[in-house]
Amino acid sequence: MFRPEALSDLRATLGDRLSTAPAVLEHHAQSESHIRARSPDAVAFPETTDEVAQISAMCARHKVPMVAWGAGTSLEGHALAVQGGLTIDFSRMNKVLAVSPQDMRAVVQPGLTRVALNHALRDTGLFFPVDPGADASLGGMAATRASGTAAVRYGTMRDNVLGLEVVLAGGRVIRTGTLAPKTAAGYDLTALMVGSEGTLGLITELTLRLHGQPEAISAATCGFPSITAAVDCVIATIQSGIPMAWIEFLDEATVAACNVWSGTSLPLAPQLMVEFHGSPAGVAEQAERFGTIARDFGSHGFLWAKAQEDRSRLWKMRHAAYPAILAARPGAVAIVTDVCVPISALAQAVAETQADIAASPIPGPILGHVGDGNFHAILLIRPDDPTEHAVAQALAHRMAERALALGGTITGEHGIGAGKLALMAAEHGSGWGVMGDIKRALDPLNLMNPGKLVPQT
Amino acid sequence: MFRPEALSDLRATLGDRLSTAPAVLEHHAQSESHIRARSPDAVAFPETTDEVAQISAMCARHKVPMVAWGAGTSLEGHALAVQGGLTIDFSRMNKVLAVSPQDMRAVVQPGLTRVALNHALRDTGLFFPVDPGADASLGGMAATRASGTAAVRYGTMRDNVLGLEVVLAGGRVIRTGTLAPKTAAGYDLTALMVGSEGTLGLITELTLRLHGQPEAISAATCGFPSITAAVDCVIATIQSGIPMAWIEFLDEATVAACNVWSGTSLPLAPQLMVEFHGSPAGVAEQAERFGTIARDFGSHGFLWAKAQEDRSRLWKMRHAAYPAILAARPGAVAIVTDVCVPISALAQAVAETQADIAASPIPGPILGHVGDGNFHAILLIRPDDPTEHAVAQALAHRMAERALALGGTITGEHGIGAGKLALMAAEHGSGWGVMGDIKRALDPLNLMNPGKLVPQT
Repeated sequence: MFRPEALSDLRATLGDRLSTAPAVLEHHAQSESHIRARSPDAVAFPETTDEVAQISAMCARHKVPMVAWGAGTSLEGHALAVQGGLTIDFSRMNKVLAVSPQDMRAVVQPGLTRVALNHALRDTGLFFPVDPGADASLGGMAATRASGTAAVRYGTMRDNVLGLEVVLAGGRVIRTGTLAPKTAAGYDLTALMVGSEGTLGLITELTLRLHGQPEAISAATCGFPSITAAVDCVIATIQSGIPMAWIEFLDEATVAACNVWSGTSLPLAPQLMVEFHGSPAGVAEQAERFGTIARDFGSHGFLWAKAQEDRSRLWKMRHAAYPAILAARPGAVAIVTDVCVPISALAQAVAETQADIAASPIPGPILGHVGDGNFHAILLIRPDDPTEHAVAQALAHRMAERALALGGTITGEHGIGAGKLALMAAEHGSGWGVMGDIKRALDPLNLMNPGKLVPQT
Repeated sequence: MFRPEALSDLRATLGDRLSTAPAVLEHHAQSESHIRARSPDAVAFPETTDEVAQISAMCARHKVPMVAWGAGTSLEGHALAVQGGLTIDFSRMNKVLAVSPQDMRAVVQPGLTRVALNHALRDTGLFFPVDPGADASLGGMAATRASGTAAVRYGTMRDNVLGLEVVLAGGRVIRTGTLAPKTAAGYDLTALMVGSEGTLGLITELTLRLHGQPEAISAATCGFPSITAAVDCVIATIQSGIPMAWIEFLDEATVAACNVWSGTSLPLAPQLMVEFHGSPAGVAEQAERFGTIARDFGSHGFLWAKAQEDRSRLWKMRHAAYPAILAARPGAVAIVTDVCVPISALAQAVAETQADIAASPIPGPILGHVGDGNFHAILLIRPDDPTEHAVAQALAHRMAERALALGGTITGEHGIGAGKLALMAAEHGSGWGVMGDIKRALDPLNLMNPGKLVPQT
């Protein structure tokens, strides 16, 4: 698949920024998923769009698969070179190209991470709100349509990417979107590229929507007598128009793990963690109205965190939920899976998933972004136990099928990658074939992240 | 193009819901635009998705162009059968199929209008916020990616369409999107279809996001010493995080026309009209903070409208701006055009456009959705004066080119239709070719609204 002439062509352009060193190849065969994959045949470290376009043209000439690599933090093996070929590592294209405070926009390169962007923005009064947890690259976040804790207020990457520069298969470079806040001029190629997981093109530049740093923040945790009570509280809060910045759900098992890990003493009950952003008077009013609604649904153990240090403690606890849960079963590794359902079906989806996990031989705490109907199960298995691995896979599969039966989706934010291809037909029916038609139209040689997302014909 | 067998096949399915009556054909050759087009050869009035799928299959067999028709209110001739063929009038598919208050969703047929939907929702505490002015059909609003006054707060059709059922060329039926609030499962076919102007498929069902009716509303108008002062006030308001439900700009000529038409007495200066939605305390605080910012930018003649009747008067004045402007030049007709620019460039774009119009022989008041950087010129011409028509066309063309030079788009909300095809290459460059690739992949016979939106090869 990777002819010597391909390698020499690439080396002529990239010099020592083309690597075939075993350690480099091995690094790019790793992922945060349970998926085992072969290494790429080589790794390129481009520095300009023009180099990426040349790479794409050369790979087309030599029929070499191309896989984009951001920070390697995706959860479904999106960046694994499952058919070998060239991994294109964007870590050297990591600059902030422009910030326009008046337009609340930043133009960035794809290898920049979200933490680095927010660091660069710290004196502007603005911030980029999409936070999937990991310090992912912004190119990777766009490619996987990432979301996370603050999506209920600020939206996902779908809402916060305004335009892209993309290198297509063969080397054609296009710019999508506009700097204007909206447009009605033609197909929404930005939205088509966001979430396409590298199968349509290589993102070389992003125009991002920024938001004003909130003047005031208040946060709270509160326990509920049941999952249903917690979810009904969220529905009532959303319907009453109270703008939550984030609202997170933790089941009892997650609370127990977090208490041990972070030294907190939350009651062992389904918990909501909520944060409000706005003016001082605004967040005070929102918090009070939320408190009233929560009490109506039987909330107890209300814990307000108005001071920065109290909020930080809650934030740290939530952000440490993953290691906390891992530590709950010493020696285990995790299969992390997510689904998203209509909010009206969320309590049922969580309860049925809990029961399914409880009836299995493995533990699987549940937590999620309840304002979006999105939740995760962290399935804890012994690393070298194929039976437990199969049990976890089956649980994840049933969780996705349950989400579909309730009108939801097989993944709210983790994406398809190499992990969930088998479920795409069930979700999309003949629409999946349309995705394949689009893929073939833009990448007829099937060189852009082959083996992923679209039907494999 | 329209063989007798095609007509008899269609009639066998539709009976007297297939019309070739001259009055029906003539009605479907009209539009709100200045574009003259031939009539369709026939008009179909389907009642079910299955009938639409059969129509699409028959049209493919007989190579008959298909043009969807909603309410006929689009401004760029989107629904004109410029190559003849079959117009598919969705007025009989106008039902609300389901409303889920818990999920804040409605499932509707494409021929339902936005006013009819909001009428059906009036007892639910929910509403659908996208308001392009006309009582457009929701299918047409999705197809053209409509927006309007409230987009700065509630988003455009891009943000408020969660899923679609679409009949593709040849009769294939797909469902896009999900009932869940977000998904990371594959290409965003919903976003691809929204704004595709009927060139990729026929929308037969929509799942829409609803919003809670605001508990309290306050509104105001205020004059500014200059356009720049008004726009800078808007930028500062957005940056401070004050959530405006809408913020409209009216230039002096528009204010003058509205004063005459509606009997108001606003000062003859650039005006902002603003509305806040929220809790009683929230809107009071927002209004107060906005007032402070507006005074910083030299606002005068502040007029608050807290009472419903005062707000209604302002609303009516704004909604009557179009007839008010038309009446300002008796006997004239209007060429209505729109562009959208980064907010930082809005004052410049408006000022340069005003100067361009002032140097021309025709009047052209300007108004727009300033929170989105989107504005309209209403170019008033004598209906049978080809010189004035050419002047207006040239002004509109320069307005679009000016928007592109400032990083904006040739249309923020009116779309491309039959009117702006010649500007697409300038906006999208090689991206326009990609739109053509997608079109060919999904509609290889070019039967879906041919002659529109994509490159005509």
